[in-house]
Amino acid sequence: MEARISIITLGVIDLERSFRFYKEGLGFPTQGKLEDGIIFFQTSGTRLGLYPLDKLAEDVSPQINAERSGFPGFTLAHNTRTKEEVDRVLQLAEKAGGVVVKPPQMVFWGGYSGYFTDQDGYYWEVAWAEFWEFNKDGSLVV
Amino acid sequence: MEARISIITLGVIDLERSFRFYKEGLGFPTQGKLEDGIIFFQTSGTRLGLYPLDKLAEDVSPQINAERSGFPGFTLAHNTRTKEEVDRVLQLAEKAGGVVVKPPQMVFWGGYSGYFTDQDGYYWEVAWAEFWEFNKDGSLVV
Repeated sequence: MEARISIITLGVIDLERSFRFYKEGLGFPTQGKLEDGIIFFQTSGTRLGLYPLDKLAEDVSPQINAERSGFPGFTLAHNTRTKEEVDRVLQLAEKAGGVVVKPPQMVFWGGYSGYFTDQDGYYWEVAWAEFWEFNKDGSLVV
Repeated sequence: MEARISIITLGVIDLERSFRFYKEGLGFPTQGKLEDGIIFFQTSGTRLGLYPLDKLAEDVSPQINAERSGFPGFTLAHNTRTKEEVDRVLQLAEKAGGVVVKPPQMVFWGGYSGYFTDQDGYYWEVAWAEFWEFNKDGSLVV
């Protein structure tokens, strides 16, 4: 198996609202149209997908209850190249309709980090640290 | 904001078990050690991270209840270059301790796809379709 996540698909309650948030609010590029019923963004490396939550669950199995409750269990991280960018991205997300659930701050592992949620309550960490290195394609050296 | 997901971190119940599943079972490369308390895999594009579920929730806010129930709301997709690879990856995942929750089959959008879950119940779709194109780095053309 190649070590690769091709797509991360978020199951969303209102596809149009989420499409607007990620496309217009955060500025993620896409060729997708709402009529397609599923949206893929041209995020580098791994693509971000949006799909109605009930349909996503049904795609796995009609027996799955699509209801979500509590912590979804995962976070997405956007690592920035500068500390200032953390503040800017969180402001951008808030302006777009997201909620800053952890204001940017120095954290125990030595970075500067904050969290926002999108309209479905999925968590994005926006983080910078002096010691994180980037590859040419923007991916992290780990 | 650059359109990029740097890391997807899965909150896991048993870090050692998950580390084994992804490293030894699926063969994902990593420089990480269990003692680090957090593991990053060198998946291309977006890095896969593993972190104890309660700590992940706490990282957002001590007020968050880490309890998960129901559908986590998202799926990870691994798109393969051949149809046969879908079968092979699902067999690999099962051998490693995952559960095949949707056997590989032709699906409505014209692809060949199945799903497995890891030990924490996170969903991986393994899919192939004639019309999906890959960039040189293995990422999907969308």
